[in-house]
Amino acid sequence: MPKKIFFTPGPSAIYFTVEAHMKTALKEQVMEINHRSAQAEGYYKTTVENLKALMAIPEDYQIFFLSSATEIWERQLQNLVIEKSFHYCYGAFSNRFYDFAADWKLSPQKAASDFGSLPNTDPSLIPADTELMTMALNETSTGVSFPVKDIYNIRKAHPDALIAVDGVSAFPVIDLDFSQIDSAYFSVQKCFGLPAGLGVWIVSPRAIEKANQKLAAGHSIGSYQSLPNLLKNGLKAQTTFTANVLNIFLLSKVTADMLEKGMEVIRRESKYKAALLYHTIEQHPALSAFVTDKKLRSETVAVANTQSDSGIIINALKEKGLVVGNGYGAHKGKQIRIASFPTHSKEQIELLADTLSSL
Amino acid sequence: MPKKIFFTPGPSAIYFTVEAHMKTALKEQVMEINHRSAQAEGYYKTTVENLKALMAIPEDYQIFFLSSATEIWERQLQNLVIEKSFHYCYGAFSNRFYDFAADWKLSPQKAASDFGSLPNTDPSLIPADTELMTMALNETSTGVSFPVKDIYNIRKAHPDALIAVDGVSAFPVIDLDFSQIDSAYFSVQKCFGLPAGLGVWIVSPRAIEKANQKLAAGHSIGSYQSLPNLLKNGLKAQTTFTANVLNIFLLSKVTADMLEKGMEVIRRESKYKAALLYHTIEQHPALSAFVTDKKLRSETVAVANTQSDSGIIINALKEKGLVVGNGYGAHKGKQIRIASFPTHSKEQIELLADTLSSL
Repeated sequence: MPKKIFFTPGPSAIYFTVEAHMKTALKEQVMEINHRSAQAEGYYKTTVENLKALMAIPEDYQIFFLSSATEIWERQLQNLVIEKSFHYCYGAFSNRFYDFAADWKLSPQKAASDFGSLPNTDPSLIPADTELMTMALNETSTGVSFPVKDIYNIRKAHPDALIAVDGVSAFPVIDLDFSQIDSAYFSVQKCFGLPAGLGVWIVSPRAIEKANQKLAAGHSIGSYQSLPNLLKNGLKAQTTFTANVLNIFLLSKVTADMLEKGMEVIRRESKYKAALLYHTIEQHPALSAFVTDKKLRSETVAVANTQSDSGIIINALKEKGLVVGNGYGAHKGKQIRIASFPTHSKEQIELLADTLSSL
Repeated sequence: MPKKIFFTPGPSAIYFTVEAHMKTALKEQVMEINHRSAQAEGYYKTTVENLKALMAIPEDYQIFFLSSATEIWERQLQNLVIEKSFHYCYGAFSNRFYDFAADWKLSPQKAASDFGSLPNTDPSLIPADTELMTMALNETSTGVSFPVKDIYNIRKAHPDALIAVDGVSAFPVIDLDFSQIDSAYFSVQKCFGLPAGLGVWIVSPRAIEKANQKLAAGHSIGSYQSLPNLLKNGLKAQTTFTANVLNIFLLSKVTADMLEKGMEVIRRESKYKAALLYHTIEQHPALSAFVTDKKLRSETVAVANTQSDSGIIINALKEKGLVVGNGYGAHKGKQIRIASFPTHSKEQIELLADTLSSL
C-alpha cells in the first residue's frame, strides 16, 4: 500500500528526512545511551544552537526540553504568575491556557472572541497589574493568526509584564522578534515534522528572574520543572528528567536540514503554499475560507467551511492518499483543516489543491 | 563498528524486538496519525490490556500514559495528598519523591536510611493521619529492593491511607499484588526496553476517589493531568495531551512479545541472571556487593563497590563492547551498576559475568 500524505495540522507528515535519521539513531544506539552522557549533551547543545540560528533567538535566552506544549502552559503559570495572567482566547488552544490558570486557582483575565476571529488587541484593554500576557501566534483549531506587530504594541504599552507566545504550529515559519517577548514554546509534531513527545520552551532572562522572585516571595514554583532547576540542568546541556533523547537527536538533525535549506527559502515557499491553498478554497464552489479577515489567515493551517458534511471531502481525499484534518470541536463535520508545514513540498500542496479542485 | 550491549540501569538496551517494531511504525506511519484517531486508540487499548495481563492488574484499575515517572511523582502529590505524605527514603529516587512534596509546600514525613540499606519498615512508625505512603520497589541508585511483604504489612496496619509504589526498574519483573496498593508507576526505558519518553501510571478506584474528594474540598488537583481528566480521556482510550504515540505503539508490541514469552519464563530467567551477577561480584577480588543484606538485593540492578576507581573497570568493559553504569551521585567512581532487564539474555549476562571475572 503506498504511503499516505498527512496534511493534518498535527501530528502531521514527518519531516522528509526523519526516516533516514531514525535509522541512524538505531545504528548509533541513540535510544540506549545515558541521558546525562556527553553524547546526549551533544545532541542537546546542537539542537539549541540550531534553533537559535533558525529563529534568531537572542544569545542570552535559554531553551529547555519538556514533554509537550501542554505541559509548558502549566509550567509558565507555575513559574511566571503569582496571581494575575491575561489571555487572548480565540480557539481551543488559546482558551485552554486560560482554563489551566483557573484550574490552578489563579485569577486569570481574558479577551475572548468567537472561533475564526481575533479579540480586540488594543493594549489599553489589558489591566495594568497583569504579570503575564499570552497569545497563540497560530490558533491551530481555527486557522487564525495573531499579528506579530500587535505583540510589539502590547510590549510597548506594558513593558513590565511578561509576554508568552504559543508558537506551536507557527515556529519556525512565522518570524518573531524574540527580544520583544519572554516565553515562547512549541511541540515538535507540527512544523518540525517529528514524532510527538517533546515540548520546547524558550525563555528570556526576565522570565527566569520572575521565577526567582516568586520563589523568594515564599510561593512554590513547582519541583523539577521550576525555571531555576531547568536552568541548572540546562547550563550542563541536560534535561531535568529522563527526556525523549531520541526526539532531541531527531530535532538536532531536522533543524540542521532546515538550516541547510535556509529559513528564507522555507518562508518563501510557505507563503506560496498558503496563497495556493486559500485561492483553491475561494475558487471552490463547495468551500469557503473560515477566517474572513485576510490579514488574520494562518499561513500554516488553512481552514475551510464545507457546504455539506466535511467527512465527504475528507474521505474522498483519503481515497487518493491525501489526509486532511476535520474541523475542531463544534466545527467537526463542518470544516476541513489543512496543514502546510515545511515538510510539505510545493508539489504536494499543488497535488492537494488540484485534487480538491476536482472534487 | 559492532553494536555495544548496554547493561546501564536506564536508559538501557532496547528490547530486542524494538528495532523491527520501529520499522513497522515507519511503514505504517504511526508517527503521523492523529493521537485521537481510532488507530491510536487501538494502540492505547492493546497496551492497557497487555499490561493488565502481564502484571495481573485488577480489572477496575486504570492505566494512564504520561511523560515520565518523574512527572508521576508530581501528579500523585497533586491528586492524592492534601497535606500529609510519608516517604521511605533510601536512595536518590525515593528521596526525590519526598523532596518534591517539600517543593510543593506539603508537609511530608519520612523514614530514611543510608544508601545501600532500607529504613525500618515497621508500620507503627508511620503517623496515623498519613494520606499517602510511598516506597520504591527497586531503588535504581543503590540496588536496594523493598520487600513486597513489607508493603502488605503496611497496608494491613494503615488500611485507610493510600500506597504508591515506584516500579520504575522493577515492573514487570517483580511480582506485586496490585489489589494491596493504590498507585504504581514506571517509565519505559528500564525493564520494558523502550526509548525514553513515556511514563505509565496505574491507579486504583480509591485513588481516583481521593482526587475527587480533594477537588470537592476546594483544593486544586491540577489541570490536564488531574485524575478526573485522565479518567475522562482514558475511558475513550485517549491521552490528555499529544502524547508519545510511537512509544505507546512500541509498548503494545513489546508487551505482546513478553506475553508470548511468558512472565514465568521472564521471572525465572531474571532470578538466574541476578544470582549469576551477585555470584560473580562476590567471587571477584576487586569487587564486593554494595547491598550486604541479601534479602534486600535488587534482582534487576546489581550494584558492586570497586576497590579502585570504578572507571577503570567500566572502560575495560566498554572496550569489549559491554556498557555498565557508574555509581550514582556520591558513589560515582566507587561503584558499578549492572542492569539485568528482560531484554538481557542469559547469554549476554553470562558474557558480562565471564568478562568481569577475567578483569
